[in-house]
Formats: sequence, structure tokens, C-alpha cells
Amino acid sequence: MRDEAADVEAANDEFYAAFEVADLDRMRAVWSDTDDVCCVHPGWDVLRGTSRVMRSWALIFANTPYIQFFLSDTAVAIHGDLAVVSCAENILTAPGEPKGDAKVVSTNVFRREGERWLMTLHHGSPVIRQLNEEPDDG
Amino acid sequence: MRDEAADVEAANDEFYAAFEVADLDRMRAVWSDTDDVCCVHPGWDVLRGTSRVMRSWALIFANTPYIQFFLSDTAVAIHGDLAVVSCAENILTAPGEPKGDAKVVSTNVFRREGERWLMTLHHGSPVIRQLNEEPDDG
Repeated sequence: MRDEAADVEAANDEFYAAFEVADLDRMRAVWSDTDDVCCVHPGWDVLRGTSRVMRSWALIFANTPYIQFFLSDTAVAIHGDLAVVSCAENILTAPGEPKGDAKVVSTNVFRREGERWLMTLHHGSPVIRQLNEEPDDG
Repeated sequence: MRDEAADVEAANDEFYAAFEVADLDRMRAVWSDTDDVCCVHPGWDVLRGTSRVMRSWALIFANTPYIQFFLSDTAVAIHGDLAVVSCAENILTAPGEPKGDAKVVSTNVFRREGERWLMTLHHGSPVIRQLNEEPDDG
């Protein structure tokens, strides 16, 4: 029996690997090639459709000299042919970059098409407000 | 035959209605009561589990004198018992509020439990960067 969660995590890891090496072909291969794909980069408005989404990656890759992701707090929920991954991206950028190191939280949705899990949605958002939570009362 | 997409949109609308009237009981009823629920408010880190998520709503409701949502660009994708809604929240707040009117883009995931679609994930992110896209070449 296939370990579905491992397959989904591998697809999620490949997304970040393609981003780190700024390889547009690898990034394109991560995504489902359909009009219903949807991408929200941190602080951006929503982009829909393969053409717009891939154009945004070309722009981001051209403007990112170095980036490395350390994922944490990854949760995978699979229902039939749809998988929702929630994770935190702890980001290391080139020294001297204006944004410095940052944390982004992401929701990534994958759909099973044949044997592969392909991305249909990426939603990343900047962590601006640090939580000062009261002690857990649960 | 039930119109599944209409049911999901109704669940999504109820989420925003509960937010507008700041009704914690209504908001609790929107969500699945499970440990795997996940919520990202705009600019916040991820919160997991009903207890933390509901505590965050109590905090937000206490600090939001007035809010009204005009949803746009809503897309619903349903696969079996899981539904992914992507939408833009055009937000109207009380006059004089420091944040003023704002735009947030959200990914909302619902799971069918019995006859109801219950929220398992809400991910909202602020739209900071206005897109100046080149003309569509598609």
C-alpha cells in the first residue's frame, strides 16, 4: 500500500526545492496545468490560471538571488484525491537582503492526477504579528 | 440532487456573517470541532486546534468594533468530502479605524461531516503589494 501522506509531503518538498534552485521547468511540473490553479504570494493579491501563476514565479525567481526554506509544523490532511498541507516556511535569504530572514505560513493544496499529486493552490502569508498568547488553558 | 457548491458557498457566507455580528457561538458552529483545524489570521502565525482558534476569534471580536465583508472572486473546488474556497474579502471597517478599508485574500477549507460542511482551515492574508501586471499575453 502506498503511503499517501509521504507522497504528498514529497510533492510539497519538491515545490520548495524547485523554488530554492529557481528552476521554472521544475516549478511548472509541480503544478496542475489547469485554469483552476490559484496562487497567493505573501502580501500579493490572488493569481489564477497556469499562465499568470507561472509568470509570477518567473518574476520572483528573477528577483531572488538566494533563498533557503526550513519547513516546520507541517500538517497533511488527505481526503480522496485532494490533500491540504499546512506548514511554516522559515526562510533564509542572502546576507544584506532588505527583508532578511522571515517566516511565512503556507497552505498548499494538491490534487491526485493519475499517479501524481499536483499543486492546485499555494497560499503564503507573512508572519507580521508575533503571538503573545496567554498560557494554554486546555 | 443537492447543489454541493451552493451548500459550500452558504457555509462560507455563514463564516463571514458570524464574523460581522461577532457571535462566538455562531462562529464555533461554523468550524469542525477537531484538533486538526487550522487558522491563519492576516499577518498571524498558524493556530491549530479548536481551543486556540476559538480563543483567537474571541480576541478579534473584542477588538473589532465594526466590520463588513464584500466577497469577490470566489472560486469553489469540491472533491468528495472536501471543499476549497478561494475568495477576496473587501473589508469595510468603522470610520477612523487605523487600518481603514482593506483587502484580504482567503483560502477556506470545508469538510463534509454528515449533512454539514464544516470549516477545517481558514487562511487570510493581507494584500500589501498591488499588482502592476503586464497586459495578459494569453
